[in-house]
Amino acid sequence: MRIIVATTNKKKFKEMQRILEREGIKAVFPEERIEVEERGNSFLENACIKAEAYYEYFNTPVIADDSGLVVDALDGYPGIYSSRFYSLEFGGKEKLIGSPDVVNVKKLLKLLKGQKNRKARFVAVVFFRGKEAGVFASAECEGIILEEPRGDKGFGYDPVFQPLGFDKSMAELEPWEKDSISHRGKALKKLSLLLKSCGKLL
Amino acid sequence: MRIIVATTNKKKFKEMQRILEREGIKAVFPEERIEVEERGNSFLENACIKAEAYYEYFNTPVIADDSGLVVDALDGYPGIYSSRFYSLEFGGKEKLIGSPDVVNVKKLLKLLKGQKNRKARFVAVVFFRGKEAGVFASAECEGIILEEPRGDKGFGYDPVFQPLGFDKSMAELEPWEKDSISHRGKALKKLSLLLKSCGKLL
Repeated sequence: MRIIVATTNKKKFKEMQRILEREGIKAVFPEERIEVEERGNSFLENACIKAEAYYEYFNTPVIADDSGLVVDALDGYPGIYSSRFYSLEFGGKEKLIGSPDVVNVKKLLKLLKGQKNRKARFVAVVFFRGKEAGVFASAECEGIILEEPRGDKGFGYDPVFQPLGFDKSMAELEPWEKDSISHRGKALKKLSLLLKSCGKLL
Repeated sequence: MRIIVATTNKKKFKEMQRILEREGIKAVFPEERIEVEERGNSFLENACIKAEAYYEYFNTPVIADDSGLVVDALDGYPGIYSSRFYSLEFGGKEKLIGSPDVVNVKKLLKLLKGQKNRKARFVAVVFFRGKEAGVFASAECEGIILEEPRGDKGFGYDPVFQPLGFDKSMAELEPWEKDSISHRGKALKKLSLLLKSCGKLL
């Protein structure tokens, strides 16, 4: 099965491609860049909006991912705003100097400075849109926010997120290790089981 | 399986309940009225938004339906605005005197007066939201818009919609006959097949 991944983020694409390949699904990067406004109020709504936009444009089966970091001490922020946290009024806007990933992490660490409750979880919703039907799945990965970034694998908040039961950050894990416990890895695994179960119905 | 139907429309609920019952699915009407703003740009997005809102509130598996009438000569209108067509600037606002169904039909017939191209189709997207996964399906029913309303069964635009291959309006068909060809009947049938295929994954 050949499916377009509804993203402009190359790092996210590579990770999704790697996970889906193991499930026998060929994921391709979109030939054109589609700008989609993430107007939804939840990960599910945003995943649906992205899948729909790419499906309408390419008229080909699509998988979209909407994911983010939910931090207990920040009332769930950055949540659905994770990728543009730096630009939010919440916690004070940050200037975009360098990559959004770096500025987002900097803002997060600033807001959590001195905070003892560092509990957080990554959440992912992955959404398959076929011609007249589709499936979706979600998964979480629990952990804590570190005091300083560690590791150079992964992307996003990976360097400051230490999954429960590990003494490494998500960015210090090997890709296969990350995928076996990550929100995205687990959600895509579930999605591929759904895709296989539904088979010709999709 | 016991599932809440994400709607405030009793007539739509009764129809969905009747169809789902035949598939062995027990559909229940929500105990409380939830107001959901249909902010989506498509039937799929709106079905997702409704399912999500009800799921978040009741924390119970939900089926939502978003459906409407797509009229060729009106560039696809009323489309996702079908239930509140009377209130749209497009084609001129109508005062709500009596039921929205009656005023919507009146506006539609006024806009199509003298129009030879009366081709239209009903579209439905039905969306199941479970705890960590879900499925959705869509279906269409092609037909034409009649000159005058006929029949008193069904609801919405049924009295002015004549399905392809029939010489009766949708509102003149017996419920079992309507369900076997209608957009909603076909979409829910597909959804129930998906639900059965996915079984414990949902």
